[in-house]
Formats: sequence, C-alpha cells, structure tokens
Amino acid sequence: MKETPGQLRVIIEGLKPEIDSGRFPIKRVVGEKVSVEADIFVDGHDAISALLLYCKENDPEWTEIPLEPLVNDHWRGWFVVAEPGCYRYTVLAWIDQFKSWQRDLVKKFQGGQGISIELMIGAHLITETSQRAPKLDRQKIGEWISALHSTQVSEQAKVQLVLSEELSQFMDKYSDRQFATTYPKELVVVVDREKALFSTWYEMFPRSCVSGSGRHGTFKDCEARLPYIAAMGFDVLYLPPIHPIGHINRKGRNNNPVANRNDPGTPWAIGYKEGGHKSIHPQLGILDDFQSFVAKAHEYDIEIALDIAFQCSPDHPYVKEHPEWFRWRPDNTVQYAENPPKKYEDIYPFEFETKNWKELWEELKSILIFWIEHGIRIFRVDNPHTKPFRFWEWLISDIKKSYPDVVFLSEAFTRPKVMYQLAKLGFTQSYTYFAWRNTKQELTQYLTELTQTQVREYFRPNLWPNTPDILTEYLQFGGRAAFMARLVLAGTLGSSYGVYGPAFELCENRPKEPGSEEYLDSEKYEIKNWDIARPDSLKDFIARVNRIRRENPALHRDWGLRFHKVDNEQLICYSKRTDDLSNVVLVLVNLDPHHTQSGWVEFPLEELGIDPQKPYQMHDLLSDARYLWQGTRNYIELNSQVVPAHIFRMRRRVRTEQDFDYYM
Amino acid sequence: MKETPGQLRVIIEGLKPEIDSGRFPIKRVVGEKVSVEADIFVDGHDAISALLLYCKENDPEWTEIPLEPLVNDHWRGWFVVAEPGCYRYTVLAWIDQFKSWQRDLVKKFQGGQGISIELMIGAHLITETSQRAPKLDRQKIGEWISALHSTQVSEQAKVQLVLSEELSQFMDKYSDRQFATTYPKELVVVVDREKALFSTWYEMFPRSCVSGSGRHGTFKDCEARLPYIAAMGFDVLYLPPIHPIGHINRKGRNNNPVANRNDPGTPWAIGYKEGGHKSIHPQLGILDDFQSFVAKAHEYDIEIALDIAFQCSPDHPYVKEHPEWFRWRPDNTVQYAENPPKKYEDIYPFEFETKNWKELWEELKSILIFWIEHGIRIFRVDNPHTKPFRFWEWLISDIKKSYPDVVFLSEAFTRPKVMYQLAKLGFTQSYTYFAWRNTKQELTQYLTELTQTQVREYFRPNLWPNTPDILTEYLQFGGRAAFMARLVLAGTLGSSYGVYGPAFELCENRPKEPGSEEYLDSEKYEIKNWDIARPDSLKDFIARVNRIRRENPALHRDWGLRFHKVDNEQLICYSKRTDDLSNVVLVLVNLDPHHTQSGWVEFPLEELGIDPQKPYQMHDLLSDARYLWQGTRNYIELNSQVVPAHIFRMRRRVRTEQDFDYYM
Repeated sequence: MKETPGQLRVIIEGLKPEIDSGRFPIKRVVGEKVSVEADIFVDGHDAISALLLYCKENDPEWTEIPLEPLVNDHWRGWFVVAEPGCYRYTVLAWIDQFKSWQRDLVKKFQGGQGISIELMIGAHLITETSQRAPKLDRQKIGEWISALHSTQVSEQAKVQLVLSEELSQFMDKYSDRQFATTYPKELVVVVDREKALFSTWYEMFPRSCVSGSGRHGTFKDCEARLPYIAAMGFDVLYLPPIHPIGHINRKGRNNNPVANRNDPGTPWAIGYKEGGHKSIHPQLGILDDFQSFVAKAHEYDIEIALDIAFQCSPDHPYVKEHPEWFRWRPDNTVQYAENPPKKYEDIYPFEFETKNWKELWEELKSILIFWIEHGIRIFRVDNPHTKPFRFWEWLISDIKKSYPDVVFLSEAFTRPKVMYQLAKLGFTQSYTYFAWRNTKQELTQYLTELTQTQVREYFRPNLWPNTPDILTEYLQFGGRAAFMARLVLAGTLGSSYGVYGPAFELCENRPKEPGSEEYLDSEKYEIKNWDIARPDSLKDFIARVNRIRRENPALHRDWGLRFHKVDNEQLICYSKRTDDLSNVVLVLVNLDPHHTQSGWVEFPLEELGIDPQKPYQMHDLLSDARYLWQGTRNYIELNSQVVPAHIFRMRRRVRTEQDFDYYM
Repeated sequence: MKETPGQLRVIIEGLKPEIDSGRFPIKRVVGEKVSVEADIFVDGHDAISALLLYCKENDPEWTEIPLEPLVNDHWRGWFVVAEPGCYRYTVLAWIDQFKSWQRDLVKKFQGGQGISIELMIGAHLITETSQRAPKLDRQKIGEWISALHSTQVSEQAKVQLVLSEELSQFMDKYSDRQFATTYPKELVVVVDREKALFSTWYEMFPRSCVSGSGRHGTFKDCEARLPYIAAMGFDVLYLPPIHPIGHINRKGRNNNPVANRNDPGTPWAIGYKEGGHKSIHPQLGILDDFQSFVAKAHEYDIEIALDIAFQCSPDHPYVKEHPEWFRWRPDNTVQYAENPPKKYEDIYPFEFETKNWKELWEELKSILIFWIEHGIRIFRVDNPHTKPFRFWEWLISDIKKSYPDVVFLSEAFTRPKVMYQLAKLGFTQSYTYFAWRNTKQELTQYLTELTQTQVREYFRPNLWPNTPDILTEYLQFGGRAAFMARLVLAGTLGSSYGVYGPAFELCENRPKEPGSEEYLDSEKYEIKNWDIARPDSLKDFIARVNRIRRENPALHRDWGLRFHKVDNEQLICYSKRTDDLSNVVLVLVNLDPHHTQSGWVEFPLEELGIDPQKPYQMHDLLSDARYLWQGTRNYIELNSQVVPAHIFRMRRRVRTEQDFDYYM
C-alpha cells in the first residue's frame, strides 16, 4: 500500500492552460489576465474549496485566489500578471467539512427534520477550526459555540448564525487543508512587455536608404530616414545584418553565382577580415554611428531590431579560429548552406553537433549579449529551424533571466509542427504563413487556428504581406489594390505585423521571373535607389492604418478576433473587440483587387452588446464616413480601385430625443 | 548550460494514446492492436528513424517496431497485446545520417552534380557503422567500401550499391543511436481477457429463482435455473449480495421503513450475527452449495459475478469489532447512508477517512481475495463513487497484479467526470447513462462520445436497459415493443450489455408510483415469484439477439460503430464493422413503440467496400429475410407491434451470370 494518506480524496485534472503536460510555458504581456480552469471533484457528496495559487518566480509565497465552480465539476479563476519575467501557477483543493455540513444542515432544517445533533457537530467543527486560529479570534468563537449550545436560542437563529458571513469567512480562512490535493505540476507563464504582442514593424536595408544616389547608405543616412518611417507609424525598425560581408563566393546581382567587383554581396554572408557578428560593416559606419542612430530612433519612439543569422561567410574569422565549429568533408571543404532547391555558396552553416558544442553555444550567446549591451532589445532570428531546438531553448531562457524585456522574432518558414515548437520553446513572436493565405477560406481557417485554439497560448503571430524573400503572386498580379488590401488584413488581423519597405509602400511587384517569389533586381544583392517621394506611394494610407491601430485597443490583441458571414466569397468580414466591449472594430476587405464587390454582411449584434431593434452608427476610420445601420444584416460595396476596405469602429446606438450625447 | 548533450536534436511530442499526461493506462483485451502515433521532427533537413518500443511488464527488453512517417511530421506504428497483464510502450527516434546521405546523394546524382566527395563520405559512414557491427559482417563491409573507392566501378553502380537493400538493412541495424531522443514517459496498457470487452450479462436475485412458489430460493434452485439462462445466451450471471442480511432498521416491502416479521430485507444491508461480507446468507445455502453452483454455471459457459457493496447493516460484526471504521456522531450513532433524496436507514457507510484507513482498506481487499479464492473473477461494484478514488486505484491494481483476469464493473450513476475517473483508475467496465438515452439524437451523441473520442481508451461501456433500481419511463409507457427496441439497442450498440431478469424478459414495467423509476413491489424488498414460462416472454427474442451477437465479430467491439442518416427522427440507423470489413452489421431500430415508421436510410457504401453501382444483399438476422438493395439510399419500414428492428448482415454483392457462388 502506498504511503500517501488515504484521506487525500479530491481529484484535480484537465487544468488549462497547460502546454504539453506542462513541458512549456504559456505567454502573456504585462497587464494581461491568466484565466485558469480545471476539473475538480471528489467521491461522494462532500463540498469542495479550491484555490488558484500563483507567484512571481522566486517569490517566497503563493498568492491565493478562490476558484469558482461552473457547471459539470469545472472550476475557474484568474490573475493578472503585473511585471515582465516568469510567474508560476497551480491549483489546490480540499474537502471543506464545514461547507458540506452547512449545506446538509440547511436541507434538513428546511425539510423539517431535527437538527440538534447536526448543531452539536457544527459546534465541534468550530472548536476544531479555532485551534488553527490566532488567539485574537477566540472570544468571538466562544460566543458562537455557546449560542449553538444554548437552549435560549431558537433553531432558526442558530441556522442564521452558522450561515452568517462572519462565521463562514472565519471557517473559510482557517479551513483544514491537511488533506488538500495540490495539482502535481507548477505551470509557468512567461510575461513580456507590451511590444511582444502589439508591434508595427518596418524592414529596411540601411545601405539603400539614400534616395536619388547610387552610393552606399550609412547609419547617418538612416537617421535622416527616421522621420519618414515615424510618420508612417512604425515602432520597430528591423535591419538585415549590419556586419562585414564576405568576399569568397560572394553573390552578384539577382543571385548570380559570380559577383562583379562592385557588387556589395548579401548582408547574410556574414564576416570578413574586419570582423564577424560583433562588428559593423565599414561602409555603414562605426559602432558609435550605430549607437547614435539607435538613440535617434528612440526619440521617434522607434526601436531598432537586429537580424541574428548564426552562419558565416567562408571568410568569417571563426572559420580559421574555430575550424571545429564547422563540418569538414573528406576534400577539406565545408558544405555550403542549402535550403533545397536554394543554394547559398557564400554561406557556411555551423556544425551544431560538434563535440565542442558548448563553446560554440556560449560564443553565439555572447553575440546577443554584445548587442544587448549596446542597447538592442529586439532580435529577428534568421532561419532558427535550421539550428537545434535545445539550443534556442537554452539561449532564450538564459538571456531572458537577465533581460526579460528582450523580444525574439522567429523567422522560420517551414512545417507547422516545427514553427510551433520554436514558439513553445521561447520565441516571443513568429512569422507565419499569412503571405500565402489570400482567399477568405484560407484566412479564416488559419487565423482561427492562430487565435482561437491552444496555439494562441504560446505562438504570437507577426503578419508580413511581403519580405525581401517573399513577393507573392497575389501582390505580383493585384497591383496597388492588392497592396492596400494586404496591408489592412495584416494590420487588423494581427496585433503585430510588418512590411518590407520601401518596396511595400512603392508597390514593388516585379518578380525575377514568372513563377518566382524573388524580386527582380533584389535588394538582397544590390544597393537600391528608392524614390520614396513618389506620388503613388502608399505611405499616407499606411500612416492612416497605423494610426487606427494605435487608437483602437481592440487591435492591440488577437484573441478577440471573430469572423462574420458575407454572402460573397471575395469579401471577408471580421471584428475585434476588447474584453469589456468598449472598443469594437469591424473590418471588411474586398479580396478581389480588380473589381467592385458587394454583398450582405451578417454579425452577432447581441454578442457585441448592441440592440438589434435600434439603429447604430458605423464609423469608417479609413474614409471618416459614418453610416447608420440596423439589424444583423447590412449591405456593403467596396471598389478596389478606390479603397478596398472599411475599418469600422462600431458606435453603440444612435441618438434619440431622450439622449444628451450622440454616441457612447 | 544544462549537461544534456547539445546533440540531442529530435523532438517527440503529441504521443497518442496517452491519458492525462500518462497518469492513467489505456485498456485493451488480448489480441487487440495498440496503434501508437506521435509527432516526430528535427531542425533542418536531416532524415529521422523512429521506433515504437513495447514490452510486457517486467520483460527485460523492449521489442522494437519501426514507426512509419505519415503526413505533417506525424508517425505511426502498432503492436498486438498477446496476454493479460500490463504492457509498457514508448517511442525512440534519432537522426539517421545514412538515410540523410542516401537521399541527398540520389538528388545530386539525378541532378547531374558530381558525387565523388559524397561517395567518400558514404564509405566513411559505412566504416564508422561497421565498428558497431559484429565481426561476422566485416567481410561484406570490406567489399562495399572497396567498391565505393574503386575507379573500376561506375558511379551508376555505386549509387545502386548504396541504395541496395542489403546495405540499407545493415546500416539500419547498426545505426548510431548515441544521440537518440526517448519520449520522456513510458505509457501503460492494461490488457484484459476477452470478456472485459465482449460480455452478455443477466442479473438475478437468487432468492427469487423458484417459480410457482413463495419460498426462499437456494443455490440449488439457482442451478435448476441455469439452462433457462444459458438458452437465452447470457455468459455472465450477476447476483446481488449473497451475504447475511441485517435486522436493525430492515426495510419492508416497497421500501417501507418498518419491516414485517417475514420481510427478507434488502441484500445490500449486509451483515448479521452469522457473518458479513465473507459469509453466505443461510437461507441460500452454505459455501459448498455456492461453489457447486459456480461449477455448474461454468458447464453452461456462464460465469458468476458477485456484487461488492462496501457497506454494513447496523448488525454487521464489523460495527462492534471495528467501531473506528465508522463515523460516530455526538449522540453515539452512525449516520446511515444517504444518496439524497434516497435514505438507507438499514445501511452504515464506512468512514474511509478514518485514521485506521490502512487496516480498513486491507480488510476490504481481503473480502475480494476471499471470493477470488473461491473461484469468482467478475465483480459488480456497488456505488464506487461514494468511496475514495485512491482506494479503488490501489485495490484494483493490487489485485490485478496477482489476478490479471479479474473484471470489475463500476456501478456508478453519477456526474460524468466522476464516472470517467473511476474508469481511468482501473474499473474494467462501467455502467452508463444508456438507460436515459432514448431519442435518436441522445443515443447518437452519447455513443459517439463513448466510442469515437479518447474516452474509449479507458471507459468500456456496459449498457443496461433496466436494473432493479431503474425502470425508465420509456419502458413504463412503451410496453413490449419498447423492451424489444431497447434490447436490440443495448445488444448491438454495446459489445457488453446486460438486463435485470426475469423482470426484463417478462416486460415488467409497473412503477411504484407515477414519476418514479422504482418498480412496484420491487424485488429488492421481497421474494418474487416470476412465471418464466409465460408465452409472451421475450426469452426467444433475447436468445436470437444474443446468438446474432456471438456469430458476428463486428458486434464484439465498439470502435467500429458509425451512425447513418435516416430521414425520420423515430428511426435510428448505425453499423458496426470489423477492421477488415469481413463482417459488417447494419442495425435499424424504430424508437416509436406505438406506430409503424418508415424512411430512407443513407450510408457510405464505398467506405464499407461495396460498389454503389451493383446490387447487394441485406440479410435480416432477426427475421432471416433477405433483401436486395442498391445504391446509398434505400427505403425501410418497421412495425413496432411486430419487430421494431432489423439487424442486417451486409453481404457484398449479388450473383451475376459470371459468378460461381451466390455471395461472398
């Protein structure tokens, strides 16, 4: 017979949220709720008390929150996470003899049965409990017990006494938890700062940030570009690698395997004699220039995100200094990186299975620490799915122990299980398949998976309509209307989204060749000269969408997303709401970039707190037009050649003669 | 940095079946398959090898079964459990360097790239692997390596060699598992004998087994009743408690709180001065009579199941010998058992929270051991949900260690989570809500939950249309047709089912009072005198249904259950099939006991291996009629006043002039 006491009778199971039996933490940002649910029950008919326990990592004591029973033995409680870092939570439950006794006493009393023995039992329970109470409470207890024993007090009054809030609270506070069941796992929530969940990204090649000139841009030039980026409303500026670029096997324009003398090479071929991952490409400036640029960006409320690509050009100093970090073949060469069918002759991968893996891992960590110490707190990690999962888990958790405000964006475009695994083991945000989800059905299915299933507990999507590697067919064929539609979708479906500019705002959509997703004359292999002042630029439209995002809290979160019916496959309709329904945004997008489309939309007014019998106002935040609607079905029409979307803020109701103000 | 080697790169997750993070075992019977699935993947593009490992408890070594990759990083394999007892299973996976190399070599060769370096790497891999191989294989290895190095052998021939089955098998066998990932849990499957899953129960009060007389039946009389029970095709005969019955607070007829002198009391008020749970009620006979009865039943292929009710009449010897096993109130009484609003004044519950819980638990176990040693292997456990879960988990696992063939049926009619918990912690079979599921929607929803969700891994339903405590309204109002319909439903929806007889076959349906589910003049409180020879008895119909069950393997299992469409809410249609489709049974039941109902049924012929373009034969095993049907939609009509059901065996196709035999 096991030595665990036979008196432990309560079962706690099915606790949520819990990822993979507690193997991985869930994620929240500061100020968010953690709502915890569990099935809690016991044999027989005894009453249960249950608590949600939580604490900040290393806190000496749990904070206790009562769990409330719902239906079918299911209980729920919640807490708010106040600071970045890690919190732990679990559940505790026990048989509450006093509550069982209270319940049965009332039944017997109401059924007209004698309760004199029950009252004696109750007095006994109070005496027993009082032994766990501090002395100060003792006098009150004496009064209760003598009242229960007194022949002068009516049964009615005794029942009132035992049901009184004061007595109940006392019995609750000192309840006997000796045989309480604790859920066998302590679960973890990683708490990030707000930007982990609500962020607006702009990707830019610093060397191309000089308009009207073919020269190599510098960090000084980048500073001059900041007002332009800030005016569009971006708050994260992500730069491809800024390190020295290798010469051996350097790529020419359009990925030509042979480079011309003046070709700059791709920034991802990191390392040359001037240095590697901790150095700055000389043509961009020096470390001081970089730091001045970072500080300047800060003045515009823009954070700089660096690209972390753990790979080397064949001229990287590591190759000579640490040959044991690479896999050498029988002919004394290193196999260059491949992502079939793509070949990267200018890049050596690290050999993570090297016997010297510990030294390698430590060195890679030191790269992050170096940039963190130079003021960087956001990293976009290049191809994390080609490095071991355990490496990332160790690296991210180790760094976040000292720097809980660091944000890691996983740039993995690969199989779903692998993308989710990277998110589980610690990446703060993740790129998604959004670029390839273009139809109503595709978008609905994918975003529902991301925002309404367990995935949302650990995977924070960052939606990108384009990147330097991804120019989708939808953008190639759909022209300006397609760029506008995809911008609205990304910016309203995702609390975090980003674009690769100025290619995006200038609607750059010429592919390298038909069927390719590569750009013609890709910026990856050459310095571009973007005319950001072009009158057809989408910069003002982007600024508008980003202002709408900032001003509407519903768009700062993803869990409030719901899709609604439209009787036209080219039109998609969805809403986002805050928990308290104080902000509800309804978005309609015409997915057909060529034609005007119209249809009837249908949405659950009552769920949104709107009386279907009364008119309500729809305020289109893109055009500033206001419409009066009534009922669950309303007609809409969108001309892609003008603006292919509405972003409505729903206003609750329309003024009547009884009202003082127009709208809530 | 953790000391786990950084080279462990493979992830194994989402393993199924796994109940509550592996806290509970799954269940199978001898000869069943355990199909195991998991998500298995690695960073990058390396090939993986994966094994399902399983062993009988205490086997020194795992048996290894290769897992096969399906889509989306999902892998599957299976094994068959051959003996009763416990098996363990888990999964192992590693990066297979040789398979990765083979795959890449073929790609390069087919792409016309040079492969000379790759062939050197291959030779190196073979050499490395050979160091793990026994000496006998070495000569062959030498041949392979020199062929790969030889300038006389063409590249084409070298590629053929490295793809050869012999070399691949060798490399597979001695693959480097040094950095293999093992799934962190070993999971358990409890294997029972066949009867745990396929059983046909008959409940009978032994004291009422004398027809045509008011006297108290004995085990000798029970022996005489065996041919009758065997003829109906039952293979488990379950007896309510056979122990001495208490006198204090004995219940009279119809649960009267005051008994007359001749009232026999309920058999669940266990214990009197003659003895308790290990004794036999004197009026039934002595232990020898019981053993002779058990042996006689065995000759008829009937197993006797005893009722285990862990509770005492106030005269049970335990009450005096072990007062510490009961909860005494301030007035020196014990609170009798209650299941509100039911009161059992003739029964004391044990106090499982007693400080002497260990002694109590051991004594209760000794009761089971006593009856096991007297040849009993099936126990129907009374109200297990009013005793602690941990008690049952300990008791059942402890007993099954020595007696893996023991079957425990859980008689818990309570909240769903509690019923499922009892099944998880070890009960072999469970009573269900079947008695109260009477409409098509109710039956479809409930049986789908039981047979098509994870519940089926641990909860084995035993379907009872009636019990001595449950006479449903459907039976009260529906008459004979209702009994026939419920019998067919129980016997074909459930591989295990049972009836309480002779009440069932005699269609006894008079309630104690309107709105009550208690029988009028319930057998629980008096000796009944059943006229089993009545011409309107359902005994022949029951015999037919039970023969159909025996002869059709599809009805021996529950996972093959599928519901099909009928355009009439009073008609329900479902099929059961064996895995290999060699036996497919289609059942149609008219749920309306009063009227003839007709409609069109629709079922997925192709899924069942039938050509929808050709006619096929439906053989009604109840009436022996045969019908020719074609296509997915067919008309049916059922007259409740004759037989309210069809049990069709589907025969694949109808003879044409090309065929020799009529039917497959």
